Amino acid sequence: MDEILETWSHLSSTERMAMFAALPRGQVDNFFLDLPSRDQLEIVLALPEDERRIWLRLLAPDDAADLIQMAPADERARLLAELDTVAQREVGALMAYQEDEAGGLMSPRFARLRPDMTVDEAIAYLRRQAPQLETIYYAYALDDSQRLAGVVSFRSLFAADRHRTVRDVMRTNPVVATEDMDQEAVAKLFSQHHLLAVPVVDAGNHMKGIVTVDDIVDVVQEEASEDIQKLGGMEALDAPYLEIGFWRMVQKRAGWLAILFVGEMLTATAMGHYEEEIARAVVLALFVPLIISSGGNSGSQATTLVIRAMAIGEVRLRDWWTVVRREFWAGLVLGTVLALIGSSRILIWQSIWKPYGEHAGVVALTVAISLLGVVLFGTMAGSMLPFVLRRAGLDPASASAPFVATMVDVTGLVIYFSVASVVLRGTLL
Amino acid sequence: MDEILETWSHLSSTERMAMFAALPRGQVDNFFLDLPSRDQLEIVLALPEDERRIWLRLLAPDDAADLIQMAPADERARLLAELDTVAQREVGALMAYQEDEAGGLMSPRFARLRPDMTVDEAIAYLRRQAPQLETIYYAYALDDSQRLAGVVSFRSLFAADRHRTVRDVMRTNPVVATEDMDQEAVAKLFSQHHLLAVPVVDAGNHMKGIVTVDDIVDVVQEEASEDIQKLGGMEALDAPYLEIGFWRMVQKRAGWLAILFVGEMLTATAMGHYEEEIARAVVLALFVPLIISSGGNSGSQATTLVIRAMAIGEVRLRDWWTVVRREFWAGLVLGTVLALIGSSRILIWQSIWKPYGEHAGVVALTVAISLLGVVLFGTMAGSMLPFVLRRAGLDPASASAPFVATMVDVTGLVIYFSVASVVLRGTLL
Repeated sequence: MDEILETWSHLSSTERMAMFAALPRGQVDNFFLDLPSRDQLEIVLALPEDERRIWLRLLAPDDAADLIQMAPADERARLLAELDTVAQREVGALMAYQEDEAGGLMSPRFARLRPDMTVDEAIAYLRRQAPQLETIYYAYALDDSQRLAGVVSFRSLFAADRHRTVRDVMRTNPVVATEDMDQEAVAKLFSQHHLLAVPVVDAGNHMKGIVTVDDIVDVVQEEASEDIQKLGGMEALDAPYLEIGFWRMVQKRAGWLAILFVGEMLTATAMGHYEEEIARAVVLALFVPLIISSGGNSGSQATTLVIRAMAIGEVRLRDWWTVVRREFWAGLVLGTVLALIGSSRILIWQSIWKPYGEHAGVVALTVAISLLGVVLFGTMAGSMLPFVLRRAGLDPASASAPFVATMVDVTGLVIYFSVASVVLRGTLL
Repeated sequence: MDEILETWSHLSSTERMAMFAALPRGQVDNFFLDLPSRDQLEIVLALPEDERRIWLRLLAPDDAADLIQMAPADERARLLAELDTVAQREVGALMAYQEDEAGGLMSPRFARLRPDMTVDEAIAYLRRQAPQLETIYYAYALDDSQRLAGVVSFRSLFAADRHRTVRDVMRTNPVVATEDMDQEAVAKLFSQHHLLAVPVVDAGNHMKGIVTVDDIVDVVQEEASEDIQKLGGMEALDAPYLEIGFWRMVQKRAGWLAILFVGEMLTATAMGHYEEEIARAVVLALFVPLIISSGGNSGSQATTLVIRAMAIGEVRLRDWWTVVRREFWAGLVLGTVLALIGSSRILIWQSIWKPYGEHAGVVALTVAISLLGVVLFGTMAGSMLPFVLRRAGLDPASASAPFVATMVDVTGLVIYFSVASVVLRGTLL
C-alpha cells in the first residue's frame, strides 16, 4: 500500500485515473480513504457522475466536508446532493466552519451516552452504534440539553464494574476545544494531554463533535510547513511543492522577494552616503559583505529560535524581558567570537601578503568593533521582532529570517561606516 | 490543568517542587503524567528516595524508559531498580533502542489475541486485560511463534458477529514499522494511513510492541523544530529555548556562525580581486549589498521549499530533474522581476537627484543583468544543494538558508563584477 501511495503521488492525472481503475476491488476502498482530500476530489471529479456516489458516501462526514470545500464553487451543490440526507445535514453543518478551526476538523459522529446508564448498558449501546461512529475510544455523557457532562474512555468503561453507572466512572471537566479554536491551539491540547480525541463544544458547553488525533498529525505537519516557508521568506504555499501551479508558486515567492528587495534598496542609499569614504579608503568596501552577512546570520538564528519557541508555546509574550537579557549576552559572546576571527584573518593576511596597506591594524580594529556591534544588533533585533509582531497581532513567523537580514543589512552598514569614521579618522579617512 | 501546565513551564526548580507538593491528591497523578519526560525526571530526582517508587511505577514502560535514559548515568540503575520485575524487564528491553527509532517509541503492552479465538472470547479477554494495556483500540493476532498474523480494530471486533473467529474479522498484511525505523518514517506511516497505533516487528515479523499516535504528535513537533533550527543556521537545540543552559545554546549557535563567517571571508577575498575596479568606479560598490542579498534571499526561498518538501516526502531524490527545470524557470522569472525593479530604481533616482554620474544608464544595465544572473544562480544552487546533501547521505536541512546565502554571496560578487567588466568597458572601467 505504501508503494502504491508513493507511486501515486508522482503520476499525472491521466495515469492516476488509469491506476485507480486498475486497483483490485479489495484494495481500492482503503486506498481511496488514505488519499489526501485534494486527490480524492481529483478522482471524484474525473469519474462519470453516476459513479461518484459510492466514493463520496465512503467518506466520514468531516472528510466529505473537506473534499466538497475544495471543489470548484459550481460543483459543490452537486457533490453534496450525492450524499444521503443525514450526511448532507452533517456535512452542511461542518462546511459552515473554517477549515483551520476546531469546528472544521471535527466529526459529528461521536459516541453519546447518558450519565445514568449502567456500564453494561453503555457497552451494549456502544456495540450497536460502533459501525456508525468515527471512534468509540471515548464516549461522551450528555445531559438532556446535549451539554457535555463528562467523558469516559472505552477502556475504563470496559475495566469498570458492570453495575456502576456512567456517572460513576466518567471524568468530569474534561479537556475540551471550542468550535472556533484555531487548529494550532487544538494541536497543543493533544500534545500536552496525550489524548486520542477531544470533544468540541459551543459557548454553552453543548457538544458539537470530536476531533481525533489522526487528523492532528496532519495539522501539525501543515502548520510546521507554513512556518518553515514563512521563515524562508515567502508566503506559505497551500499545496505540495510538486503539485502547486508554477505561476501560483512564483507569485507566492515574488511578492516577498520584491518587498525584501525594495527594503534592501536602502543599502544602496546608505552606501551612497559613504561614497566619499569608500573613494578615499577602498579597503573599507572589501569587508562590507562580510560584516552585513554576519549581522544577517546572527539575526536569522535569533529570530528562528524565538519564532519556533513561540509557535510551540515555550516562549510567551510576557517572557520578552528574559529573552532580551539572554540574547544580549548571547549576542555579545557571539560577536566577540566573530570579531576575534575577523581581525585575526586581517592581521594574518596582512603579515603574509600585505593586501591592506600600512593601516591594516586600524582596519582590523574597525572590522572587529563593527562585527561586535552588528552581531549584537542582529541578535537583539532578530529576537525582538517576533515579540513586536505578535504584540501587534501579526504572525511572528512573518518576521522571516530574510526580513531580519534585510533590516540588519542597512543598520550594519551604518554601524560599520560610523565605527570607521571614528577609528580611521586621521589615518585612512 | 492547562493553566497549571502553563505556569509550571515558567517556574524555577524550587518553585516547581513547591507547586508539585501543593497539588491536590486527585490532580497530581494526571499532572505528572502530562509532563514531558525531562520534567518528570526533574521531579523524581528531587524527591527523597523512598518517594520515588510510586511516581516511577505510575509510568507506562515506554515513558519510564524515556525518563531513565535522560537521567545521569550513575542514577539509571537505581531508578530502574524502583520498578517491579516485569516492568524492569520491559524497560530494560526498550532502553536497548535509540530514542528516535520505532523501538524507542514503542510500548510492549499491546493487546494480544489468538487468531482462532471467537469474537466473544476475544472481547472478554480484552476486557480482563484492559487495565494493563497501553491501548485496546487495536488488538493483534499472533501465531504460536509470536509472529504477527493480523490486526483487528476493537471497533470492528465489537461490531462483528460474536460467534465468528478473530481470523475472520482481522485485517492481514497490516501496516507495520520495523524496530529500527526512524521516527520520521514512522510519523509518515501515521499521517498517510490515519492510524491510531502501528505494530512494531523485527526482521522475522515477530511482534515487539506498538507505537501509539499520541507519541507521534510530539515526534512531528520535535522533528519540525529540529529542521527549523537547522534552517535558521544553527545546530538543533535539544531542549526548550528557555530551559537550555546559556553556554550550551551559545555553543550550538557559535559553531555554525563561525563556519558561515569563515565561508563569508571569501567575499573579502573576492572583493580584493576587484579592488581596482571599485577604486575606478566607486558607484559599483554601492550596489554590492543589494545584489548579493537578492541572491541570498532567492536561494533561501528555494532551499527552504525543497528541504521541507523532502522532509515530508513530497519530493524524493529522483525528482531532482523536475525540480531543476521548475526552479530554472522560477529563477528566470523572479530574476527578471528584481532586475526590472532594480534598474527602474536607478534610472528614477538618476532622473531626480543624478547621484550616479553620466553613465547611470550602463550602471542600471549592469545591475539588471547581474540581478538576473544572481537570482537565477541563487535559486538553482538553493534548490540543488539539498539533493546533493541527501545524495551524500547527509541531512538536507543542514543546507540551511544562511549556508546557501553565504555560497551565493561569493558567487554573486563574481557575477556582478564580471558583468560590470564587460558592460562598463570603455565607459566607467
